[in-house]
Amino acid sequence: MASFYVALVHHPIVDRAGEVVTTAVTNLDVHDIARSCRTYGARAYYVVTPLTSQREIVQRILDHWITGPGTRRLPQRGEALSICTSAESIEAVLRDIEVREGQAPKVWVTSARPGPEILSWSDARDELMSDEQPRLILFGTGHGLAPTVMKEADDRLPPVRAGSYNHLSVRSAVAIILDRLLGDGVES
Amino acid sequence: MASFYVALVHHPIVDRAGEVVTTAVTNLDVHDIARSCRTYGARAYYVVTPLTSQREIVQRILDHWITGPGTRRLPQRGEALSICTSAESIEAVLRDIEVREGQAPKVWVTSARPGPEILSWSDARDELMSDEQPRLILFGTGHGLAPTVMKEADDRLPPVRAGSYNHLSVRSAVAIILDRLLGDGVES
Repeated sequence: MASFYVALVHHPIVDRAGEVVTTAVTNLDVHDIARSCRTYGARAYYVVTPLTSQREIVQRILDHWITGPGTRRLPQRGEALSICTSAESIEAVLRDIEVREGQAPKVWVTSARPGPEILSWSDARDELMSDEQPRLILFGTGHGLAPTVMKEADDRLPPVRAGSYNHLSVRSAVAIILDRLLGDGVES
Repeated sequence: MASFYVALVHHPIVDRAGEVVTTAVTNLDVHDIARSCRTYGARAYYVVTPLTSQREIVQRILDHWITGPGTRRLPQRGEALSICTSAESIEAVLRDIEVREGQAPKVWVTSARPGPEILSWSDARDELMSDEQPRLILFGTGHGLAPTVMKEADDRLPPVRAGSYNHLSVRSAVAIILDRLLGDGVES
């Protein structure tokens, strides 16, 4: 089975007008996505932002729950957040995974919008089950990952759609996508 | 197809010690779960709390996004939140659904813990596809729905589990469960 990594990207992101921006870190994105990543077995969860002050906020959250007062109140929260770390760029994430694994990961991108060259869910599951090369799954904030990131990726997962309304929170989208890729409930 | 409803219950809930308590409403539970409910076609999403002041908080959130300043900034958020409403009790939710549908719903409960008499995901999907009676899916906050609620339900959905760590946020659990019941991505 391929080991897999998740990154929540705050730059480069597009805003409503399509401009490339840096979004702000949201506390509950750190918590909820760490809990989903820990549940489905991600090796690490990266919160990606070039802003030092924002990476310091992430570190304060992690410290509170991993070694600070939060450990007594809710020890399982620290267990989830201990796989979370901040990174200054997607490139820094790729380097970190290469150091851990001895090889660079294949990069899978996600989008709420339909697009070209989409890997099917079943092929993605098969690859995760049978491949040795690690996978990095990138999730965007704001109005999604910048076009450069989409273009440079190795593959693109299908959008999560169930009808005409297409505005899940990124926290919900991560949970659903990890379940589609790695959950065992779909056959039972 | 059965119409379905979702309720997020803040009372009666158990705390860490197993005592029955009332939990506080969380802003992002209102937003994220409304977005998931709207995505998967729930007829309504009830935020259940006996506390008038907490129901007023929910109403302020809804007003802001459905008719207030939020409509200009992010119109699709109001579209999701327009299916959300508060209710003072599970009984009030049941009465509301009976008025809307002309019949009371079957009640499905959820829990992170394994338990007896569990409906399988495939049977639950089949029931939703073929049945005429509406379904109400109850989600707990805190440490889960009180035992009285679990006992009085018609059926119980399986816990979402993927490994040994079993502490998803309720926002993520709702997203995954709606996708397992109603998503079309699992076969493609």
